Amino acid sequence: MTASSPERRRLRDLGITVGRLPTGKLNAITDVAGVRVGHATVWRDSPRVSRTGVTAIWPSDDPWGSEVFAGTYSFNGCGEFTGWLWLEESGCLTSPIMMTGTHSVGAVRDAMINIAEERGHPAFWHLGLVGETYDGFLSDAYANAVQKDEVAAALDAATADLPDEGCVGGGTGMNCHEFKGGIGTSSRVVEIAGERYTVGVIVQANYGVREELSIDGVPVGREIGVDVTPSGRRDAMGNAGSILIIVATDAPLLPHQCKRLAQRATVGLGRIGGYGRNGSGDLFLAFSTGNKMPTAGVDFLSGATPKPPMPCRMLPNNDMNLLFVGTAEATEEAIANAICMARTTHGREGRASHAIPLDRLQAVWRKYRPNG
Amino acid sequence: MTASSPERRRLRDLGITVGRLPTGKLNAITDVAGVRVGHATVWRDSPRVSRTGVTAIWPSDDPWGSEVFAGTYSFNGCGEFTGWLWLEESGCLTSPIMMTGTHSVGAVRDAMINIAEERGHPAFWHLGLVGETYDGFLSDAYANAVQKDEVAAALDAATADLPDEGCVGGGTGMNCHEFKGGIGTSSRVVEIAGERYTVGVIVQANYGVREELSIDGVPVGREIGVDVTPSGRRDAMGNAGSILIIVATDAPLLPHQCKRLAQRATVGLGRIGGYGRNGSGDLFLAFSTGNKMPTAGVDFLSGATPKPPMPCRMLPNNDMNLLFVGTAEATEEAIANAICMARTTHGREGRASHAIPLDRLQAVWRKYRPNG
Amino acid sequence: MTASSPERRRLRDLGITVGRLPTGKLNAITDVAGVRVGHATVWRDSPRVSRTGVTAIWPSDDPWGSEVFAGTYSFNGCGEFTGWLWLEESGCLTSPIMMTGTHSVGAVRDAMINIAEERGHPAFWHLGLVGETYDGFLSDAYANAVQKDEVAAALDAATADLPDEGCVGGGTGMNCHEFKGGIGTSSRVVEIAGERYTVGVIVQANYGVREELSIDGVPVGREIGVDVTPSGRRDAMGNAGSILIIVATDAPLLPHQCKRLAQRATVGLGRIGGYGRNGSGDLFLAFSTGNKMPTAGVDFLSGATPKPPMPCRMLPNNDMNLLFVGTAEATEEAIANAICMARTTHGREGRASHAIPLDRLQAVWRKYRPNG
Amino acid sequence: MTASSPERRRLRDLGITVGRLPTGKLNAITDVAGVRVGHATVWRDSPRVSRTGVTAIWPSDDPWGSEVFAGTYSFNGCGEFTGWLWLEESGCLTSPIMMTGTHSVGAVRDAMINIAEERGHPAFWHLGLVGETYDGFLSDAYANAVQKDEVAAALDAATADLPDEGCVGGGTGMNCHEFKGGIGTSSRVVEIAGERYTVGVIVQANYGVREELSIDGVPVGREIGVDVTPSGRRDAMGNAGSILIIVATDAPLLPHQCKRLAQRATVGLGRIGGYGRNGSGDLFLAFSTGNKMPTAGVDFLSGATPKPPMPCRMLPNNDMNLLFVGTAEATEEAIANAICMARTTHGREGRASHAIPLDRLQAVWRKYRPNG
Repeated sequence: MTASSPERRRLRDLGITVGRLPTGKLNAITDVAGVRVGHATVWRDSPRVSRTGVTAIWPSDDPWGSEVFAGTYSFNGCGEFTGWLWLEESGCLTSPIMMTGTHSVGAVRDAMINIAEERGHPAFWHLGLVGETYDGFLSDAYANAVQKDEVAAALDAATADLPDEGCVGGGTGMNCHEFKGGIGTSSRVVEIAGERYTVGVIVQANYGVREELSIDGVPVGREIGVDVTPSGRRDAMGNAGSILIIVATDAPLLPHQCKRLAQRATVGLGRIGGYGRNGSGDLFLAFSTGNKMPTAGVDFLSGATPKPPMPCRMLPNNDMNLLFVGTAEATEEAIANAICMARTTHGREGRASHAIPLDRLQAVWRKYRPNG
Repeated sequence: MTASSPERRRLRDLGITVGRLPTGKLNAITDVAGVRVGHATVWRDSPRVSRTGVTAIWPSDDPWGSEVFAGTYSFNGCGEFTGWLWLEESGCLTSPIMMTGTHSVGAVRDAMINIAEERGHPAFWHLGLVGETYDGFLSDAYANAVQKDEVAAALDAATADLPDEGCVGGGTGMNCHEFKGGIGTSSRVVEIAGERYTVGVIVQANYGVREELSIDGVPVGREIGVDVTPSGRRDAMGNAGSILIIVATDAPLLPHQCKRLAQRATVGLGRIGGYGRNGSGDLFLAFSTGNKMPTAGVDFLSGATPKPPMPCRMLPNNDMNLLFVGTAEATEEAIANAICMARTTHGREGRASHAIPLDRLQAVWRKYRPNG
Repeated sequence: MTASSPERRRLRDLGITVGRLPTGKLNAITDVAGVRVGHATVWRDSPRVSRTGVTAIWPSDDPWGSEVFAGTYSFNGCGEFTGWLWLEESGCLTSPIMMTGTHSVGAVRDAMINIAEERGHPAFWHLGLVGETYDGFLSDAYANAVQKDEVAAALDAATADLPDEGCVGGGTGMNCHEFKGGIGTSSRVVEIAGERYTVGVIVQANYGVREELSIDGVPVGREIGVDVTPSGRRDAMGNAGSILIIVATDAPLLPHQCKRLAQRATVGLGRIGGYGRNGSGDLFLAFSTGNKMPTAGVDFLSGATPKPPMPCRMLPNNDMNLLFVGTAEATEEAIANAICMARTTHGREGRASHAIPLDRLQAVWRKYRPNG
Repeated sequence: MTASSPERRRLRDLGITVGRLPTGKLNAITDVAGVRVGHATVWRDSPRVSRTGVTAIWPSDDPWGSEVFAGTYSFNGCGEFTGWLWLEESGCLTSPIMMTGTHSVGAVRDAMINIAEERGHPAFWHLGLVGETYDGFLSDAYANAVQKDEVAAALDAATADLPDEGCVGGGTGMNCHEFKGGIGTSSRVVEIAGERYTVGVIVQANYGVREELSIDGVPVGREIGVDVTPSGRRDAMGNAGSILIIVATDAPLLPHQCKRLAQRATVGLGRIGGYGRNGSGDLFLAFSTGNKMPTAGVDFLSGATPKPPMPCRMLPNNDMNLLFVGTAEATEEAIANAICMARTTHGREGRASHAIPLDRLQAVWRKYRPNG
């Protein structure tokens, strides 16, 4: 049994669009050149029920040898994201970004250190970036199912293709707006001062109550209420959860500008129905591949020596508005893709998390967008 | 000629609603007991053209004698808000909150110090809270039209009634989504653990481009494009601007919880069409009247002596979700009220800022909400 | 062979004092009623060399059942501290605080989740607080020597006595100012408005270069230069490292006030010779036992229901100055105690980290403090 | 009567040094090429007593035409600094920096807008940077003595020479550690990867209690207690006050790195005796002249058009340590210079603020530094 599901469709394949900017070729974070995504999914019923996994996002081919700028934003901090404090301090991304289930954060984080050592990479991997949302509704969180092998598999599986969405990798056991949720991605292309830039988003979506779901303003959740395909205990699924949002762009942004971009993911999340509820870890990270610099390392590495200033480029602050719009739109659509691509999943203790019925979604859309 | 306009209507009076929570009695920030609002409007054509003013928000009858808790959030910092750093440090609101035009911030801030001295109030007024948005499209910003008399007038005019909205006080010369904008307010009532709490919002709205305006998900701005009632230069009105959002609640929140509430205004702003554009000063402040304590003063006041711990109350973090929803809804509706209540205004250099045509707004609503 | 060392002495036992405020009875963080500290030390030479461990700080007897307020401050973010983001968001401390070696953070963090489950404690342990500094100079960091058993042992060993200092627990393999470092603690007692409050500090000290060490202003490091008892490679020991500073008080502080207290640890660290160097994770956390409230839990716990507001107390901001002074003094002395109590330690690859020679320290003191 | 005072001496001219790094040629912020400082002092006895003024710091010759990167840090936010939020958001410094008395902030801020208009400079001056400390002990703060003429005078007086120190400009009426305080400056030169960089600091020092003053670790304030040359009411002088610290460097730092530098001023302030007391506005700003870029303006300026990315340079994070040390040392010495250069000043209501007796200072130094 696999996590993929041929009958599921991405939002645009249903004839539904979000916003007004054009998407990239894949409509995915991997439209940003150099970015790759890989998943490792753990789906087994014994000895303990696991619907979990880990997703790896590579900002470049060599994140431990060439840093890119990055920034973070916590919309609601009921979550874990290791490596966060160093990213904030340094403005630099010095590891792949991993997304997994809450109880696997430690194992994934330590695994990255050991994998890095085995592969000959230097010390900054010890502050590796690992975020989480909680998959304990469907998956036995205490099974410790994600270990070093799964981390290595996700890292090694990464490609520049359209990533799998829905019930894969870190998103395997997640729920969103009381439908089945998981991984989703989208992108936008903007033109600024004659140059084309891409902004791509990938999410691990595991938040939200049903009636607050809205897509491009259409009140989907009011129409498909919790009386339809109820997805388990409301307390556990509706109010629980969290969302990780990773934003990538090839526009040459400095760290403080990456932070601004991360902050704008709030707009996309807010539009589709997120409020940053108290129990939600809504943690956003944005990076720019527009500047790549040799990793400085830290000074406790033997042989670390001072280096001359490094050249970089900065998109003027005043040029960022379209990137803000693109981030919001791609965030909203990435979440919608996570919901649309996830299929109904049965998990521990006989629980089920139901996929959004795509025909119902299309019907609601036609009702509220009579002109299409 | 006055700024008020009997033919303008609030959003709900047009049959349009935002969200799902009930409003307070007045549907205004003044539904929060103890909060008062006053305006002073400067509307003259000579010697220089002024469409400006100042708005005063009293968090309590005696903000210099009894502090309330408060927190802030900067969604985009292209703006000024004096007193911000002390509020962040202390968690306490120790002055009325003033909203005015950009170039009047200094005058209003110094005026508050002098008014406080004249009225016998202590030193914390010297870090008075004065925010701004830019009204230079319609008003001659260099006319220095708001001075101590206007500040005193706004303070003294404050009442607990429904505040005037639209082209009044600090909102007189503002534009919003390329319509005429200004002051707007709204509120929501929630019940938590058997107690009723009110969250109220007042905005000074001066941001946004036309096509991004959306009300409760209905794409108003796509339908009423800039080809309809064009409101001056797009660069000046659309991309310019800022929004001040003040949130009040009687729920007993501690300072860090007020900050969380301020942050949630982003959801309401994002839904109606705000992105925190680069040139926008999107500054939010939330306060709670649920705890009132004697002002501690600062230790350089002669006579300041240590005091024993003061009792207060804290709503559990876990109870805040409905306040988050209420803040978002009231923010969106307050902005809509600002737009709906503002009338077409002519200003300097023959410029006009057009009111949103209310009949068109209703027609768009009916089109996208066929069931009402 | 044990980590303890009878010939080492605390700073005050050498006749040296820091600052002017009186200490608590134990001159330790455990002077704050209810706070307990426990260590588990891993000291073995085969199969791999381990000089490492883990230290547990209990803010109360029941951190998962009764929250206390807390706040954080990152002076330099080149470090890891899991649970940080939720503490920032909620203002509440909902787990013991663990300090360990860098590469053990994940294992300790996950272990806390599993231990909590086994002992019947609820979900917030999944955002447990685990900080680190790097002990790879003396200890084989890749040995994964700290696991669940060690975490349980440290938690269970906690007592309200004077904690062991120097080469114990998380501090076993640490260096400080190119001397042997590790765990240190100190406290101060202040009287405010007729009430006595204690502020206590515990550090895991692993930072600094020799010549920058200064104690109460006496330039110890200039006098005992790196030509004396050289402690390994300077790059590895001097420039590396980090310091964790945990501040506790029984003064009834709200979360934003705890944050202010954490920030003041910078003064103590700066005085003794810390600069927050680029490669240093200088992460501070302050908590107040002055308010204890039932843990609200999060709303995804089945059975979580809204609760009425909880009473608490707030020391007026204006009363905090002596706590600021006490935090700075106790921080400086805790670091000095870590250095004074640590003994010369031999570790992996034949490396040695030398203890500060106490007689030399006293001689330097007498030279610069001729009056004693 | 002038504010200058030939008998006063800078710290180094007394044979006293701070730290170990070499100073720049002038030992002043103006050692950073392109930085200029100007003062306007208001010293009159009627109709109201004024001991006040304003100080202008130019980061470059053309701050409104070419931006430099900058960052801020609030050690204790009981102060005002207009323009702060935009600097945080944009990472760019787009105006001169002004320091004045608390009650003059509004007048100076508005004056900068009007001066900029008169001189043909664009809009960002409307978010001009104006910080303050409180001079009401000696000066009648309600006299509104600093107006547009004084602001223009300070701006126009700026030179690249050694700035006047002590009782001049914004520092005229200030006190520090219960001695007379005011303006002070210092610098350090470091060599990193073969390039020489300068870090310069200027302070407006108005904080601190006597016994906490320490210079390079020598407990000056314990020796010259408040029984010596008492300087007015302790409550008013000792506990009051604030300090503005402006750090400049020619090292090519990005905005997030400037923020790190600003944060390190805490070390210098902490060493000399600052605690960030509750009533103190301890606000720090650091800027780098190492990158200069055409001002982007904001998009509401007519004619603002998107621009291509701009080249810049970044000193590797790992190279910043010496700049951290330099910032701390120059901060401590700048404060000491403010105290040493200020002369005894008589002000309103017969009050006096006494200069530190330089011979006593030297005697204390010799006592605690027997080797010199």
